[in-house]
Amino acid sequence: MADLLLGKPVGDAICAETSALVEKLTTEGVQPTLAIVRVGERPDDISYERSACRRAESLGIGVRPFTLPQDASQDDILAAIATINEDDSIHGCLLFRPLPKGIDEAAVCSALSPAKDVDGITAGSLAGVFMDTGIGFPPCTAQACVEILDHYGVATEGASVAVVGRSLVIGKPVAMLLLSRNATVTLCHSRSRNLPALCQEADIVVYATGRPRAYSLEHFAEGQTILDVGINVDDEGNLCGDVDFDAAEPLVAAITPVPRGVGSVTTAVLMRHVAQAAASLGR
Amino acid sequence: MADLLLGKPVGDAICAETSALVEKLTTEGVQPTLAIVRVGERPDDISYERSACRRAESLGIGVRPFTLPQDASQDDILAAIATINEDDSIHGCLLFRPLPKGIDEAAVCSALSPAKDVDGITAGSLAGVFMDTGIGFPPCTAQACVEILDHYGVATEGASVAVVGRSLVIGKPVAMLLLSRNATVTLCHSRSRNLPALCQEADIVVYATGRPRAYSLEHFAEGQTILDVGINVDDEGNLCGDVDFDAAEPLVAAITPVPRGVGSVTTAVLMRHVAQAAASLGR
Repeated sequence: MADLLLGKPVGDAICAETSALVEKLTTEGVQPTLAIVRVGERPDDISYERSACRRAESLGIGVRPFTLPQDASQDDILAAIATINEDDSIHGCLLFRPLPKGIDEAAVCSALSPAKDVDGITAGSLAGVFMDTGIGFPPCTAQACVEILDHYGVATEGASVAVVGRSLVIGKPVAMLLLSRNATVTLCHSRSRNLPALCQEADIVVYATGRPRAYSLEHFAEGQTILDVGINVDDEGNLCGDVDFDAAEPLVAAITPVPRGVGSVTTAVLMRHVAQAAASLGR
Repeated sequence: MADLLLGKPVGDAICAETSALVEKLTTEGVQPTLAIVRVGERPDDISYERSACRRAESLGIGVRPFTLPQDASQDDILAAIATINEDDSIHGCLLFRPLPKGIDEAAVCSALSPAKDVDGITAGSLAGVFMDTGIGFPPCTAQACVEILDHYGVATEGASVAVVGRSLVIGKPVAMLLLSRNATVTLCHSRSRNLPALCQEADIVVYATGRPRAYSLEHFAEGQTILDVGINVDDEGNLCGDVDFDAAEPLVAAITPVPRGVGSVTTAVLMRHVAQAAASLGR
């Protein structure tokens, strides 16, 4: 029976801190405000947006939705980003990705003002993560993984960590964040040979490939901590992670469930970043 | 008996390519030109500068030395960088590091125009390496490691690579370059537990910690390829790598010697970057 690393207490603790900062800023006449850019009506995005809005409202953080149709042009999206950049009452921007086919996503990401990049999508923020300079904000989900480990007292110093998946949203940045905490980090991916053994040998494994229940018993080992970043819908329409939870849970030491795991911490991290960006930018 | 992965043939092959590009640019009235900023008289730097100048001369690449005294101020160094940025006849800049104590090295690095950053010292170049966008130039020594593997046909696809050392000059960027070639990369460092086993399990090991002959027999395994990036001077005044070469050579499949290994490829990569920067910048 593994310890369940639930996201809610972690998110609540982050929000308690954030709440104090938001109150202080509000007293000073600044309401931290997040722009949310969504193109199309993908259910995952809508669901995440809803939970982000709830979280923002509970904290007194403003939300400014920029909702564009699925067939929005590159210029339409860039115009939304330009509006966000120029509006001094907006302090951060969440952009749902992937953007529709035909849109140059890299160009859209790099158009965002680095100071408003609260989710680590610009080169400036990612350079900060890679160089460990503390400049910019790391991607919220990557930061959420670190927050969970910290909250539950899982040691990273000298620990061996396997990160499965090498995206810029999670895999690479979480590897850098854990490296800066003195973990020995192995970046694994679809081309890795003998992935089960690589996973079994690690003290902590972060699964972030978006493949529903793709990682089975042969990947797990006693005493491990598993962070399951995947949020997938299985054939029966149920939410599930990348990990076969039922296989892992009896064996490993600790695991994040899906739902109620990493995802519930991500919006809390996002709100903290918005408040911090507002504190830096002023109004 | 390991295959010796000598740097010279690799550097020569790179220079043959570069030479053609330099000729073409020269015909067009552009002489690719490198500024070399050196503060103080560290023997390593002087020796590297000498070999860079030789390499440049043989290719028809110009060199503009900016040699500052050891007690140069931050403003003196920034003034040199500003001159380089503004001079259209200079296409790239090599800055010897570490800079003397008391100098804000990060500020100096970030002052350099990203387009002239031929050695991966700016946030822009490092973001390009991390994001795998092809924007900017990676640090020359990291790129040199990849060139050696390519030249000698050492497969990286699916290979397990241990990188020992996590500097921004070598460890982190070479990890990203090899990850983008589908290696499974483990970033190891001074806090890693059981480093010998981590090294033994890898197909390819990059040692880049600058600790003379620090890695001994217990780190090596049959069939491995070893890249020894360290250039150190031992107690007897002899050049040596990070690896105990005499212990490794009889066991492993292939190894770069020190000297005549990675170091001899680095200046060739630097010159290629200068020519490429000149081609992008024009004059």
